[in-house]
Amino acid sequence: MKSEDLKTVRRFVREELAADGTMDTLAEKPHDVYEKFRGTGLANWWLPEELGGHGADLEDSVEIVNELSYGDAGVAFTLFISILGTTMVQLYGSDELKQRYLAPMTANGGFCATLGSERASGSELSKIETVATKEGGDLVLTGEKFFSTNTDFADFLVVLARSADNPEDYLAVVVPRDTPGVEIVKRWDVIGLRASHTYQVSLDQVRVPAENRLEGSGLRLLEIGLNASRILIAATALGIARRVRDHCMVFAKTKPFRDGTLLDSPVFAQRLGQMEMQIDVMKSHLLRSAQDFDAVMEGDEPAEVFRKQGTLKSALTAKMFCGQAGWDVASVGSEMFGGLGYTNDHPIGKLLRDIRYVSVVEGGDDVLRELVFGRYVVPVPRRT
Amino acid sequence: MKSEDLKTVRRFVREELAADGTMDTLAEKPHDVYEKFRGTGLANWWLPEELGGHGADLEDSVEIVNELSYGDAGVAFTLFISILGTTMVQLYGSDELKQRYLAPMTANGGFCATLGSERASGSELSKIETVATKEGGDLVLTGEKFFSTNTDFADFLVVLARSADNPEDYLAVVVPRDTPGVEIVKRWDVIGLRASHTYQVSLDQVRVPAENRLEGSGLRLLEIGLNASRILIAATALGIARRVRDHCMVFAKTKPFRDGTLLDSPVFAQRLGQMEMQIDVMKSHLLRSAQDFDAVMEGDEPAEVFRKQGTLKSALTAKMFCGQAGWDVASVGSEMFGGLGYTNDHPIGKLLRDIRYVSVVEGGDDVLRELVFGRYVVPVPRRT
Amino acid sequence: MKSEDLKTVRRFVREELAADGTMDTLAEKPHDVYEKFRGTGLANWWLPEELGGHGADLEDSVEIVNELSYGDAGVAFTLFISILGTTMVQLYGSDELKQRYLAPMTANGGFCATLGSERASGSELSKIETVATKEGGDLVLTGEKFFSTNTDFADFLVVLARSADNPEDYLAVVVPRDTPGVEIVKRWDVIGLRASHTYQVSLDQVRVPAENRLEGSGLRLLEIGLNASRILIAATALGIARRVRDHCMVFAKTKPFRDGTLLDSPVFAQRLGQMEMQIDVMKSHLLRSAQDFDAVMEGDEPAEVFRKQGTLKSALTAKMFCGQAGWDVASVGSEMFGGLGYTNDHPIGKLLRDIRYVSVVEGGDDVLRELVFGRYVVPVPRRT
Amino acid sequence: MKSEDLKTVRRFVREELAADGTMDTLAEKPHDVYEKFRGTGLANWWLPEELGGHGADLEDSVEIVNELSYGDAGVAFTLFISILGTTMVQLYGSDELKQRYLAPMTANGGFCATLGSERASGSELSKIETVATKEGGDLVLTGEKFFSTNTDFADFLVVLARSADNPEDYLAVVVPRDTPGVEIVKRWDVIGLRASHTYQVSLDQVRVPAENRLEGSGLRLLEIGLNASRILIAATALGIARRVRDHCMVFAKTKPFRDGTLLDSPVFAQRLGQMEMQIDVMKSHLLRSAQDFDAVMEGDEPAEVFRKQGTLKSALTAKMFCGQAGWDVASVGSEMFGGLGYTNDHPIGKLLRDIRYVSVVEGGDDVLRELVFGRYVVPVPRRT
Repeated sequence: MKSEDLKTVRRFVREELAADGTMDTLAEKPHDVYEKFRGTGLANWWLPEELGGHGADLEDSVEIVNELSYGDAGVAFTLFISILGTTMVQLYGSDELKQRYLAPMTANGGFCATLGSERASGSELSKIETVATKEGGDLVLTGEKFFSTNTDFADFLVVLARSADNPEDYLAVVVPRDTPGVEIVKRWDVIGLRASHTYQVSLDQVRVPAENRLEGSGLRLLEIGLNASRILIAATALGIARRVRDHCMVFAKTKPFRDGTLLDSPVFAQRLGQMEMQIDVMKSHLLRSAQDFDAVMEGDEPAEVFRKQGTLKSALTAKMFCGQAGWDVASVGSEMFGGLGYTNDHPIGKLLRDIRYVSVVEGGDDVLRELVFGRYVVPVPRRT
Repeated sequence: MKSEDLKTVRRFVREELAADGTMDTLAEKPHDVYEKFRGTGLANWWLPEELGGHGADLEDSVEIVNELSYGDAGVAFTLFISILGTTMVQLYGSDELKQRYLAPMTANGGFCATLGSERASGSELSKIETVATKEGGDLVLTGEKFFSTNTDFADFLVVLARSADNPEDYLAVVVPRDTPGVEIVKRWDVIGLRASHTYQVSLDQVRVPAENRLEGSGLRLLEIGLNASRILIAATALGIARRVRDHCMVFAKTKPFRDGTLLDSPVFAQRLGQMEMQIDVMKSHLLRSAQDFDAVMEGDEPAEVFRKQGTLKSALTAKMFCGQAGWDVASVGSEMFGGLGYTNDHPIGKLLRDIRYVSVVEGGDDVLRELVFGRYVVPVPRRT
Repeated sequence: MKSEDLKTVRRFVREELAADGTMDTLAEKPHDVYEKFRGTGLANWWLPEELGGHGADLEDSVEIVNELSYGDAGVAFTLFISILGTTMVQLYGSDELKQRYLAPMTANGGFCATLGSERASGSELSKIETVATKEGGDLVLTGEKFFSTNTDFADFLVVLARSADNPEDYLAVVVPRDTPGVEIVKRWDVIGLRASHTYQVSLDQVRVPAENRLEGSGLRLLEIGLNASRILIAATALGIARRVRDHCMVFAKTKPFRDGTLLDSPVFAQRLGQMEMQIDVMKSHLLRSAQDFDAVMEGDEPAEVFRKQGTLKSALTAKMFCGQAGWDVASVGSEMFGGLGYTNDHPIGKLLRDIRYVSVVEGGDDVLRELVFGRYVVPVPRRT
Repeated sequence: MKSEDLKTVRRFVREELAADGTMDTLAEKPHDVYEKFRGTGLANWWLPEELGGHGADLEDSVEIVNELSYGDAGVAFTLFISILGTTMVQLYGSDELKQRYLAPMTANGGFCATLGSERASGSELSKIETVATKEGGDLVLTGEKFFSTNTDFADFLVVLARSADNPEDYLAVVVPRDTPGVEIVKRWDVIGLRASHTYQVSLDQVRVPAENRLEGSGLRLLEIGLNASRILIAATALGIARRVRDHCMVFAKTKPFRDGTLLDSPVFAQRLGQMEMQIDVMKSHLLRSAQDFDAVMEGDEPAEVFRKQGTLKSALTAKMFCGQAGWDVASVGSEMFGGLGYTNDHPIGKLLRDIRYVSVVEGGDDVLRELVFGRYVVPVPRRT
């Protein structure tokens, strides 16, 4: 990536996210931080240049998210999760939708929220009950969405619904945030990523032009958008794991142990050597996963290729692996600081809570393993 | 154990600790709860009958702690951790000390705190710098203690110190809580067990009669007291793991999955079958560990036997195993509830934070593994 | 147990099984070893005294198998696996069957084989296709049995079959080894336990008196017999794991490391401390499991109690846990000896192959987890 | 890589290595197979074109080894392990050495063996006792080498020794196989990779010209050669893991399960989905590791860069990760086939034995973790 971008991100992390714990508060939208990030010119960095965006590819995005989540994974999540919806609009929206909704996002640092899951359909999205009714040239959406991030302060939402006429037809529809009928039911009190904002949302007779529907099956489109967001979620595990490692090293330098410090302990060396291996492997796989995504996006007819392909194997395996390896790193790390690590005087507890989300959101491992099996093991030529 | 005791404990748990999360607050000492427990007559249940105690052995105690920590591990910890100090006094204190400090504890439901660890000596207690100076018939204690539980509201403390005259001589000294010079520096903001109270404490010229010293090397005595507390800490992992399992089952009963509920999922069955196995094994090992302890306590000259034996192997392996298996159960559990499990609307996050302490307090696994190796693997006849 | 029995077993192990690798040969029945074991008077040690047996209970049996498999798990398996069939006969056979088949087994050191699994029904025994046809006062058995141990040199077999008249009726039938129609198809070339003998067997019009049927559903009876054999299979993991540990210690004593030997390495101490913990926990759970079994056998109407209960929870969890922990111990052990451990000059490779069977025979972990779930988690009062 | 090369390798694997188990014999050098591989023109494929070699880079080599070890890891190991020595000669040998020893290797399909480890110095090579004495223009080598592969039929050896004059000076010396004094003490009876040939070797007054010494410290040169071989050893884990997966799928297709086959089992899908993830991650990391190596080799002054750098981080982490993940895949796989998997009628036992070597040879994980820690965690800028 452009090395000045990486420098910019690192400076932002150092200056805005350095103080341990300050982001662990479930505070109201921390305007300052997001305003300051907008000031770097990197807001929604992945948007294509033809829409006035910064044009970073997903490989660059992995690096950016890695750095941001080294600082705070909740801030990172807030800053990148719009990619889930914007990818859907970029690939399957009309030119007008792109101009109206995506083009302003670099300058104004705005957000997009995706509303998929419902109370009774977390991992089985085909069961959603939000309904889209055609009324003249409009679509009218009604339903209850369980978890969606950034919704309250997003500029626009991408809503998954099923057609009132044909329950087998799933729609993905762009909905401006300020459309009447979009209501925040509550903000979730999450156990980690507490700088981020996730909501339960009610949609009551929300009316938008029929042109706001993205082209294709909403379920498939969501799967495609998830290729980007799952890889970046996985990348937060890398940033958090690196932070855990560095906290261990800082602690070890001054922790008395035998005649020296913990740094001299061969057992400590083993733990850290294993961590570093896991971190190194996470990075390799994240980069290859991002390259897989970029290869499609930069190839011919990405919209068509993705429509055929659906979920990328490496996006699934990246989230699985980084979630598992990251949890392992953080679990080991959380035993490293003695009693201090069991207090909020040390950030390890926060890092442990933060990293937990990687294996939980956008499909738990059971769901992803099943997808990998069905899509990439059963068909012989798709096996690695 | 007496089955009415178990019923009493279960009723207490059901009535006082049923509401998820109410204990997760770091509140001021929840007087009500502890008062109510005193009302059951079971306060400090392990104290011997000859001191007016309830006379439960450690095997019974495992059952009681299992039940209490099913309700709330922080409450359980507060209620049982006095055993660390009382065991030392019971075995190595003069009759007068026992009468004065232990005898009232059943009726008044009082607490005892043990002050061992210091900032620079968590796992290496031989490095403590708290000093005891002989002045006439008194001992004067000065130092800083890093982590000690219940101190603020304890009736008396057991303080580890080294002799000013002979730095190789470690003392364990009984100190009434209200002795001038005992000061609470701060209460720790712990990440779990938030119904419990752990403090940093300063000792400044704390004067007690020389008779308050327990007989023998303070380090050895502490090791012996830890036999009881480590097994009960391990037992909290059992209670928490059972709670995790039951939350999974409650969730699965109503969680839609395919054409039924999650309860019909063969993958869910695998996870729960594995959990139950781990729980069952934890229980077996806890019971055998407690029997090992009880066999000494009920045998001839327990004080002498323990002085020779020091740390019991099964007390070490119980804490190691239950900490590891419990963490595994809670980690798996924390992926079971989808997004809901990442919010404080569900107690799994709290249970995960609670159970983490088992592998952290009273010796991390690295320390215990080294002890097991040195004491019970190197000497051939002591191997299992 | 009677301490002289344990001494006898240890002497046998020391004298007959000491030489590493000599039993790893898939040799013809090593008559010598089994003859010598018969000479100790402990052959089929679990048979009840009223049948002229040695009368050891399952808790004793765990100790015996622990010792035997420290020497060689294949020899141990050969010596104890008859318990699967004898338990069925003892509980559900007529007095005449017991007198004829069980009573001579102590003196003659004979064997019993159980023929359950078939090619297409390993873990789903209800699918067996071996058929029992009533002809006058006889039962005629025909079918193909895939894996059965000791068959060739057993005195009698216990055969699982389904009724020709009623495919829902499963029979367990005692068949003398020399009955016409019982044919060994082949001996399996197993990867471990190579001192044991497992066969594929064909039954062609095998005729026995109808009285040879044991009373009750064959599937249920098998489950009951498996309670004993699964616990003893689990016990072999304990013996092998102890052997692995001891090999590590012997190796470490002379292996140069830094300025001393590997015994001084803190990392080595960690590995061995963890192993010892696992070994200690295996032992606790095995003893409790055996006590569960013995409690039924020594209680009122064991046949009825077992018929209601079927599989014991702790028999399932013992095999699961010891298989898993044992595999972990052996896996770690197999990395401990450098290149030497990758050669047959060192026995670790053999121990690794041997211990693998614990998680494979008599139900893989997937099958057992499902059983634990269905029988002991779903019904709330049966949870631990 | 050139796609025809990959086709060639695949054809070779299909035609020569297809029959399960035929290579698991510790047979005398299977001339046929290696002759046939020479016939493909790919023998020692990594040798540079300027020496008449095939010029494949390490990334290509990973693919080739992946394919070969899918067929048989022992054959793969035999075919690639020469790279350890040839890399040292290529980078640090005189032009004459390169012409004489490397140039013929493509045409004649010859082998090179590296003799490093000794009985008392497996992981601590600085303790080797083989001595090189300068006598006029010659070097005379005497010592005992514990493990070296291919030695008996190699064209030349690279021997590690220390200078008789200066024990701090380590030499790497090229020795023609047929030099008097080179004697095979024995061939090791290895537990896996049984198509390969590893020897204990004695060097008694082995005399070569002083020019046969490679330039630089022998220990450092060995480290550099290990960069290539460790990555390719890791790549065998990928091939074996893929083979395990495919055996599972073949088995599942016909294994009856409930009303269908095992392929319909959601639990089986979970196991295979997890395996595929691990395989996919192994591949990503192997490719990045190989790219790291190739970047140096294809950059300016590779000999100098490597001399400064020594061991590559990703070569260490690749062997660690692939060894660990591969062992996990094979362990899970070995429980998948029921009793059949415990027999030599099924190849899973062989695959389990084969893959074990990855974590054992060329540095166990404890050694590599320590290296990673000391070289790549302690120096802050070298962390990932």
